[in-house]
Amino acid sequence: MDHTPSTIDEIPTPALVIERRAFDHNLRVMAEALPGPRLRPHVKAFKSTALAKEMVAVGHENFCAATVAEIEGMVAAGLDNDLLLANETTDYTRLGRLVDGGADITAAVDSDDVLEAVIRGGVRRILIDVEVGLPRCGCDPADAGRLAEAARAEGIEVRGVMGYEGHLMMVPKPDRRAAKVEEAMALLLQAHRDVGGDIVSGGGTGTYAVNTWVTEIQAGSYCLMDTQYSTLEVPFQQALSVLASIVSVSAKGWSVANAGLKAMGMDHGDPTWPEGELRFCSDEHSTLTVEPGGPGSTFGDLVRLHPAHVDPTVAKHRTMWVVDGEDVVDEWPVDLRHW
Amino acid sequence: MDHTPSTIDEIPTPALVIERRAFDHNLRVMAEALPGPRLRPHVKAFKSTALAKEMVAVGHENFCAATVAEIEGMVAAGLDNDLLLANETTDYTRLGRLVDGGADITAAVDSDDVLEAVIRGGVRRILIDVEVGLPRCGCDPADAGRLAEAARAEGIEVRGVMGYEGHLMMVPKPDRRAAKVEEAMALLLQAHRDVGGDIVSGGGTGTYAVNTWVTEIQAGSYCLMDTQYSTLEVPFQQALSVLASIVSVSAKGWSVANAGLKAMGMDHGDPTWPEGELRFCSDEHSTLTVEPGGPGSTFGDLVRLHPAHVDPTVAKHRTMWVVDGEDVVDEWPVDLRHW
Repeated sequence: MDHTPSTIDEIPTPALVIERRAFDHNLRVMAEALPGPRLRPHVKAFKSTALAKEMVAVGHENFCAATVAEIEGMVAAGLDNDLLLANETTDYTRLGRLVDGGADITAAVDSDDVLEAVIRGGVRRILIDVEVGLPRCGCDPADAGRLAEAARAEGIEVRGVMGYEGHLMMVPKPDRRAAKVEEAMALLLQAHRDVGGDIVSGGGTGTYAVNTWVTEIQAGSYCLMDTQYSTLEVPFQQALSVLASIVSVSAKGWSVANAGLKAMGMDHGDPTWPEGELRFCSDEHSTLTVEPGGPGSTFGDLVRLHPAHVDPTVAKHRTMWVVDGEDVVDEWPVDLRHW
Repeated sequence: MDHTPSTIDEIPTPALVIERRAFDHNLRVMAEALPGPRLRPHVKAFKSTALAKEMVAVGHENFCAATVAEIEGMVAAGLDNDLLLANETTDYTRLGRLVDGGADITAAVDSDDVLEAVIRGGVRRILIDVEVGLPRCGCDPADAGRLAEAARAEGIEVRGVMGYEGHLMMVPKPDRRAAKVEEAMALLLQAHRDVGGDIVSGGGTGTYAVNTWVTEIQAGSYCLMDTQYSTLEVPFQQALSVLASIVSVSAKGWSVANAGLKAMGMDHGDPTWPEGELRFCSDEHSTLTVEPGGPGSTFGDLVRLHPAHVDPTVAKHRTMWVVDGEDVVDEWPVDLRHW
């Protein structure tokens, strides 16, 4: 790239593009629903400290993360008002170093092994991570109290509990989703009674409105959105797209855009092209069905593809371009990538 | 990471790991089947100049690439004996700059628009890219001669043709695959008669043994392999795996490894865990079914997951660790990422 793009047609493709107005709408709606510390934005969805600072500007100062690299980047950007590693790892020495430097870091703990690693690594504050139905991390709810006691006996501050009802994010009907979330949160509240502390943390973009049992919601996708979450009745707009250029036009009715499965997360299926049919993706291509003279029918045309899953899509890119209409108004580096 | 790992248990996870012996086997088998310029390795599969140099060591000096960034990285590493951008793009000025610097670069051209952009960008050698049945890039075979003539009229050197039979890579039976490839290559050879030049380029890991009509095969996956290509009768071994650590163990019969869909390409489905069942992947996790006392049943256990598709998996990582048994014998940066 020779210079910083000032309009959308100067952005080198493929590229992540964020619609400023849709993004602002999403932040405003969420900040009204869950003001201040009622939301603990999850940086795994967007992996950008520049974007995180936009959330601070609307009142959310406490964040959670899925990787140690995300925590390190947030601390480096001064965004460690109250940082939670909402996940387990095997090596807490990198976090301990940040704690020694004065960072406010809390770790999720779901076993004696993790507790021991946390203590050895030098982290001093934890949440007990409770399994609430998703077969992933988290202790048995009945074991949470014992684990908290073991931690406190070692001088660790136990701030409360967390439990992620990830298996319920995509339950289609809000009523049914709310009922299932209530069952999951009953397990978390049972654990909280045994553990104590001020924090009950859980939820995500799919359940932020129906999970009324936690003290804070861990959501991140709401700010950018994807076609998977868009199938739910949530009041957030599609703010992220992958900008691509048409590099080949066939007389047989298709064109080829230069963004493929190395530019978009494919775990929830193909991306969507709002202006027509996307046939399939290859490593560096998406084949689109086009009409003569229609969108995508000319070499060099720009098209915007909507990925099915935002988190792994963002993780493939180095930067996000923020646009308002045709103007590029900001660039947000994706600085929390890798591990 | 505090120091360079010398044994596999010191590698920070998740990480790409290459088995040196399987890799050497794959390179040897391919170099015997297609010596020297009969193979033009495709760097898109492994995105590493260090790995490319291993291919040079067994006789393959000409490479092809899918992105301008791959070409730029190969030139920077001195690997531009004969470099082909086997793909179309909208901006050839970055390639033209390399040509001005003395790099030997050939571009694929499938339309008048691309030809014009190539000339404007300063690239002087091309192949005519012909569509042979895959609905992606490539001109109509009947238009190839006209396009070559138009290029030559502008003083461009037309070296021959290329056509990628990507839709035939996974035809299960070799006999049937060979028959279908013959049909596709008949289209390419028809175009070649009209175009002229020394090069007929095509093929991939799935068809390298049956495509006897081209002068050179464009294959890359063979060196690392994945579970998709492993379903074919090809003599290559699985050399790449994603190394992960167990971060959570449930009494209910599962464990959680710290590599998920941000560490592995998911477009061809879930990765495989050779030691047991992989239930599902999340952003940073894979949930594995484990037996008490068995592999993956202890916090900190290392597991190796085999991705379904190598190309997008490699593109997610910054480096590859080369191992021989328990020893780390080399590190190959994935230096050809992004665009």
